[in-house]
Amino acid sequence: MELKKVFEAQRICLVGASNKAGSLGLLVSENLLSGPRETDLTFVSMDGEEEVAGRPCKTELNSGAGPFGLSLVAVPVARLKEAVAEALNARVHHLAVLTSIDRELGGDMDALREDILSMCQEKGVRLLGPGSLGLADIRTGLNATYFHGELKAGGVAVISRSSALAAAMLDWAAHRGLGLARIVSLGDMLDLDEADFFEIFAEDDDLRVVIGYLENIRSGKEFIKRAEALSSVKPVVLLKAGTTAAGEKAALLHTGRKLHSDIAYGAAFKRSGVIQAENFQELFDFARVFDSQPMPQGHRVAVLSNAGAAGILSADAVEGAGLSLAQLGESTLATIKQLLPAGAQVDNPVDLLGSADPKRFAAAFEAVQSDEDVDAVLMVHTPHLLAKAEETVEALVKARVGEKPALAVFMGGASVVQARQRLVEAGIPDYPSPGRAVAALGALCDYAVWRKRPPRIVARFPVNRRRVERVLRRHQRLKRLEVEEYQAKEILAAYDFTVPEGQLAEDADGAIEAAERVGYPVAMKIVSPDIVHKSGMGGVRLRLASPEAVRDAYDLIMLRIQRKKPEALIEGVYVEKMCQRGVEVVIGMHRDAQFGPMLMFGLGGIAVEVMDDATFHLAPITFDEAMQMLESTRAFAQLSASALADTMDPSAIAQGLQKISQLAGDFPQIQELEIHPFIVGRPGTEPIAADVRILMNKGDTA
Amino acid sequence: MELKKVFEAQRICLVGASNKAGSLGLLVSENLLSGPRETDLTFVSMDGEEEVAGRPCKTELNSGAGPFGLSLVAVPVARLKEAVAEALNARVHHLAVLTSIDRELGGDMDALREDILSMCQEKGVRLLGPGSLGLADIRTGLNATYFHGELKAGGVAVISRSSALAAAMLDWAAHRGLGLARIVSLGDMLDLDEADFFEIFAEDDDLRVVIGYLENIRSGKEFIKRAEALSSVKPVVLLKAGTTAAGEKAALLHTGRKLHSDIAYGAAFKRSGVIQAENFQELFDFARVFDSQPMPQGHRVAVLSNAGAAGILSADAVEGAGLSLAQLGESTLATIKQLLPAGAQVDNPVDLLGSADPKRFAAAFEAVQSDEDVDAVLMVHTPHLLAKAEETVEALVKARVGEKPALAVFMGGASVVQARQRLVEAGIPDYPSPGRAVAALGALCDYAVWRKRPPRIVARFPVNRRRVERVLRRHQRLKRLEVEEYQAKEILAAYDFTVPEGQLAEDADGAIEAAERVGYPVAMKIVSPDIVHKSGMGGVRLRLASPEAVRDAYDLIMLRIQRKKPEALIEGVYVEKMCQRGVEVVIGMHRDAQFGPMLMFGLGGIAVEVMDDATFHLAPITFDEAMQMLESTRAFAQLSASALADTMDPSAIAQGLQKISQLAGDFPQIQELEIHPFIVGRPGTEPIAADVRILMNKGDTA
Repeated sequence: MELKKVFEAQRICLVGASNKAGSLGLLVSENLLSGPRETDLTFVSMDGEEEVAGRPCKTELNSGAGPFGLSLVAVPVARLKEAVAEALNARVHHLAVLTSIDRELGGDMDALREDILSMCQEKGVRLLGPGSLGLADIRTGLNATYFHGELKAGGVAVISRSSALAAAMLDWAAHRGLGLARIVSLGDMLDLDEADFFEIFAEDDDLRVVIGYLENIRSGKEFIKRAEALSSVKPVVLLKAGTTAAGEKAALLHTGRKLHSDIAYGAAFKRSGVIQAENFQELFDFARVFDSQPMPQGHRVAVLSNAGAAGILSADAVEGAGLSLAQLGESTLATIKQLLPAGAQVDNPVDLLGSADPKRFAAAFEAVQSDEDVDAVLMVHTPHLLAKAEETVEALVKARVGEKPALAVFMGGASVVQARQRLVEAGIPDYPSPGRAVAALGALCDYAVWRKRPPRIVARFPVNRRRVERVLRRHQRLKRLEVEEYQAKEILAAYDFTVPEGQLAEDADGAIEAAERVGYPVAMKIVSPDIVHKSGMGGVRLRLASPEAVRDAYDLIMLRIQRKKPEALIEGVYVEKMCQRGVEVVIGMHRDAQFGPMLMFGLGGIAVEVMDDATFHLAPITFDEAMQMLESTRAFAQLSASALADTMDPSAIAQGLQKISQLAGDFPQIQELEIHPFIVGRPGTEPIAADVRILMNKGDTA
Repeated sequence: MELKKVFEAQRICLVGASNKAGSLGLLVSENLLSGPRETDLTFVSMDGEEEVAGRPCKTELNSGAGPFGLSLVAVPVARLKEAVAEALNARVHHLAVLTSIDRELGGDMDALREDILSMCQEKGVRLLGPGSLGLADIRTGLNATYFHGELKAGGVAVISRSSALAAAMLDWAAHRGLGLARIVSLGDMLDLDEADFFEIFAEDDDLRVVIGYLENIRSGKEFIKRAEALSSVKPVVLLKAGTTAAGEKAALLHTGRKLHSDIAYGAAFKRSGVIQAENFQELFDFARVFDSQPMPQGHRVAVLSNAGAAGILSADAVEGAGLSLAQLGESTLATIKQLLPAGAQVDNPVDLLGSADPKRFAAAFEAVQSDEDVDAVLMVHTPHLLAKAEETVEALVKARVGEKPALAVFMGGASVVQARQRLVEAGIPDYPSPGRAVAALGALCDYAVWRKRPPRIVARFPVNRRRVERVLRRHQRLKRLEVEEYQAKEILAAYDFTVPEGQLAEDADGAIEAAERVGYPVAMKIVSPDIVHKSGMGGVRLRLASPEAVRDAYDLIMLRIQRKKPEALIEGVYVEKMCQRGVEVVIGMHRDAQFGPMLMFGLGGIAVEVMDDATFHLAPITFDEAMQMLESTRAFAQLSASALADTMDPSAIAQGLQKISQLAGDFPQIQELEIHPFIVGRPGTEPIAADVRILMNKGDTA
C-alpha cells in the first residue's frame, strides 16, 4: 500500500489504548475518537482494560484482524517490543510508534531500536518513529497524534523531527489561527523520513505551504531529489537545528579551512529551493505569508503608513532585506495626493499622515495595489490620535484585490489586539514590526524568483577521461592520498584547463633543457611523495630567469632536501613556466559525505584564507549558477563595481567551476580539489590553473 | 526652574482644552484629570467653552496667571501661534506644544516653527515639541499626553522623537505589563532634545532602563556626553531610524569609500554605552530583560529544557550571539542526574526530558543558578505530553534566587498564554523563541561588560605641534586641500610616526644624491600640487636599486609629466627609501560633521578596499579601545588565529591609532587622514607609515 494512503486509512488500530490519565494511550484514543471522520477503530489494551474512552477494547490481536491502513503503538517503553509484536500480529501496512526511546531508561536502547525495525521489515511494514507525536490530516478529521489541543483545518503541512517541537508548532498554529492540513512527526526516522513525506506532500494539491523542523538528514541525495520536486510545486520552509559549532562539529578540510556542516545543508537547501528559517519565529512568520499571499512578480514594495517614523523604519527594513521601494506611477501619486490635505508631499514610503482615517488608508491601498510598478504592499499602522485600528482593517480587507502580496503591521499592543485578530481571519498576514513583515516578504520574493528559474542545463566539456583514469589508478596503486602536483595538473589539462607549461626533469641538465623549452622565467618544484610542504622544505624556487639560475636552484633544492629529509624518495624536479599576473581566485571542490561534491569559489589571498568569504554550491552546476556563486561573495560584488572589473573575465571562472563539477561527477575517487591560484585575465584570455592540490578518497587507496 | 521639575509641576496650564470628541484638547484634559495626583490645573479654551471635562475653563490668561511649571498647547495648527501667545501671557517655565506642524497644511511651516521658538526664547521659556505626544510620570500620576490607554507604573523611561512611535511604545508596554516611569515625546526638537532629558533621567534613581526612538541628533558632542553619563548609571536602549541608504545618504570619502551616517551613529552609541536595538521588536525584548534582571558577572549560560531539540536550538542561539554554554560544576551535574531517570546523560544544554514535571524543572533551576560557573540561566519549555506550563512557572518563580539573570522561553501558543502572563507578573522575562531570549541576554551581558570598563585614560605622545602647524599653514596659505605626500609625512613624523627616510630633489643629480643618502632601493614620486593621481600620470617609480636606475627614472618621470600635463607646477621629485615588507594595514581618520574625528582601521588591500571590513571609533581613543577596534574586524580576528600572528605586533597599530587620535584632536583643520599602507612587523620593530594622504577642511583653506 502506498504511503500516501496512510492519511486516508479507513481501518486504524491502536495498541496501548488506556484509561490512565495523561498516558499516551488515552490521549491518542481521545484524538482518534474526536474526528468527524468515520473510521473503523480497533483499540487494544495491554493492561486488559475492556473499554477505553467509551469504546470496547481488545486485549490481543489475532492474525485475522486487519488489514489496518495504520496501526499505532503507544505504550511505556518497557513494553514496547511486546506491543509492536502484538500490532504486527494483524495485517498492517504502516506502523507508527509514538513511544519514545530516549535516554530515560537504562539498557541497550539502540538494540531495542534495531529489534523493532527488523520486526517491521520482516513483515514488510513501513515504520514511523519511534518517538513520533503521530500523524494527522486535520482537513479530513484524522488525528492520530497525542497532541492535546484544538486544531483548525487549512493549507499548511507540518513535518518535524522532534515531537516536542511538533507540539510547539501545533500549539502556535492553533493560537494564531493558522489552518493545518497534514501533520507528521518523524521521531527517530528508523525507516520513514522527511523525503518519504515530501513525495506525498508534492501530490497534495490543496497544500499551500510545508513547514518543518529537521536535525540531521539521512540521505542527502534523496533529500535533494524530493525537496526540489516539492519546492517546485509549493513552498517549503525548514528550520534546521545544529547550525553552529555548538551543535555540529566542523569538518577540517585538507586545505586547512574549516567547513561547517551547515554550509553543505545551506547549499542543499538552496539547490532544492527550500526556504531556510533562521529561527523558530521565522518559521511561522514565513508560513503565514506563504499560506495566504500570491506570488509577487518582482520585489518593488509600496509602503503605506500613518506616521513618518514608521515609514522610515519600513524603508530601512526594505533596503536591508534586498527588496526595493517601488517608484510609484504618476496616476498613483496623483490619486494619493488628492486624499491628503493640500500641500502634503507624496513619496514612497507613503506618509498618509496622523490624520489618516480608514477611508484614506483604503483608498491609498487601492491606488498602490493597482499600480503596475508595485509588486507588493506593506501597510504600517501606528496607534495615533485619530487611528481607528479595527475600522482601518475592515476598510483594507474590503479594498484588497488579492493579486499582489499585501502585509500589515499594526504597531502597538493593547489597542490593536482586535484589529490583528481580524487580519488573521481575513488572511492578511500581520506582524508586530516592519522588520519581521519585510523579512517574510523577502522570503516570498526569493521563492517567487526560484520558481521561475530557467531549466538547469549542465554543460559538458570535451575531456580526456582516460588520461585522468591513468593518473588516478597510478596513485591508487601506490596508495597515495595526495596526487603529485604535476600529475594533478595533467588531470586538469585533460579536463580542458590551461596549466602552465612544464616538464619533469631528473637532473640539472634536464632542468635547463626543460626551462629552455618552456621559456624563462621558470619555477622549479621538487617532486616527491614524501614531501608535502614543498616550500617549507626548501623544495620550491621561483622566477628563475637563466640557465645558471636553474642550475643553482637545482643544486640548492637537492642540498636542502638531502639535509632535511635524506630518506625522501625523489622523482625529480618539475620545471614550469612562471604565470602571467592577473586576478587570483580560488576554485575547488570538497566531497560532502551527505550531499556529494560541493564546489567552492573565493577571491584569492586574504578573502578566502582569512575572511572566509567563499561560496559553495552542489555539483553538478550550470553556468548561471556558477555566475551566481561569484556574485554572492562580498569581494566579487565589490570588485565588479570597481575599476578592476575590466581586467577579469568572470565567465572564465564560471567555466572553471563547471569543469571541476564535471570532473567531480566523473571521478568519485577524488575527495578534494583546490586550484589556488586560478589566474584570470581579461575577456578573451585563457585563465591559468597555476597551482592545484588533489586529494583522493581514503577508501579508494586502501 | 530646572527642567527636571517639569515632571513634578504642581501648577499646570492647558491652552486648547476642548470638548470636541477626538480632539487633542479633550484627550489631554481627560488625562490630566485622570491622575491620582493633586495638581492645580488651569484650562483655557480657545473656543469660549466654559467647562471642559467637568472642569471650569478660562477663555484667556492674564499676566497674573501662573506661574506654571508646565503649560501645554493643544490646538489645531491654524490657531497655534495665537495659542502659544496666549500661553506665554502667563508666567510659564516650560511649554509643551502637542500640536503637530507637519506637511498637512500649506503655508510656510518652517517660518511658523521659527516664530514659536523665538516667542518662547523672548520669554526665557523652554520649549518641548511641537509635535510632541506630551510628557508623563506614570509613578506620580502625571499624564500630560494625549495617549489614550491604561498605563502601569514601573521603572522604564520612554523617550521618542516620533509621537506615533511613542504611542506605539506605550500601547505595547500596556499590553505586556511593562511598568513605566517618565515618558517624553520630543517632537520637532526646536529647543529641548534627548540630551536634556538624558541628564534628568540620570538623576532619577528609580529608573531601571531608558528606551527610546531617535531619528537625527542635533548635537553629537552633547549627545555623547549626556548619553555616556546616563549609560553609566542605567541601561539605555535606542532604536535609530534611517540606518540604510534608503533613509540617509552615504557620505563619499576622499578615499573613495562610502561612509554611511549609521557608522558614525554606531560609533557614538558604542562610545556612550548605548545599546542599539536593530528593530522595534528588539527595543522591547531588551527593555524587558534590563527592567527585571540583575547584571550578569560573565557570559556563561546554562540552558534547561524539556526537549532535546529545544536545547539544540538554544545552543545554536547562544553560540551565534557570542555567549558561551557554561561548563556545569560536578555537584550541579550530580544534583541534576539525581532528578532524572537512571541512565540519563547530563550536559549543557540540560535535557530534562519530556517527562520533566514542574518539580524537576525547579530543582534543576536551583542547581544551575547556584553553580558558580553559571552566569545566566535560560529555561526553555515545550508543550509536550506531560508538560504543565502554569505549574512549571509557579515552581520556577518560587525557586528563583534572583542574583543571576534568568530568562524563559515557553514555546507554543494557545497552551502557554496563561503561563506567559504569569511570567510577566513575576518579573521573569519570557520570549517566544530561544533566539530572541538569547539576543536580549547578549545585550545584557554586553552592557554589563561596558559598565565594568576601566577608566578611559587617553595617552599623549611627545609630539612637535609647531612643525605640523607650519606645514598646515603653508597649505592654508596656498589654498590647497590636499597636503603634499612628503609634507604629510612630515606631519606624521612630528607625531611620533616612523616614515621612510626621504628627501626632495630638484634634478637628477639631486635625486641620485638623495638615493645615496637614504640607501637603495628607493622610490621616486613627483611632487606637484597639480597632480593628484601620481601613479596614473607616470609620476611614480619604485624599487630603484642603482644610480643609473634613479637617473633613468627621473628622466622618464619628467618626460611623461611633460607630455601629459605640461602646465603642471613641478616642485621636484621625492626620493624615498623603499620599505621592508610586513603586514599592511590601513589606519585613518574622518571628521564626522556630527560626532567629530572618527578613527578607522582595516587590514590593507582587499580587506578594506573590496570587503568593507573596517572598524570605526570616535576620538579620543585609549589603547584598549584601539585594540578592540583591531579585534572587531573579521580579518584581524582570523589573522590572529593563524600562523601569521607572530609576524605582526598589534600594539603598534593601536599606538598608531592613538597618535592619529591625538593629531585629530590637536588640529581641527585636518578633515581626513589615511595611512595606507601602515606596515607592521614583529613586536619590537618600528611600524612604518609608507604612504599617507591628508585632506584639509574646505573652510580652513578658504
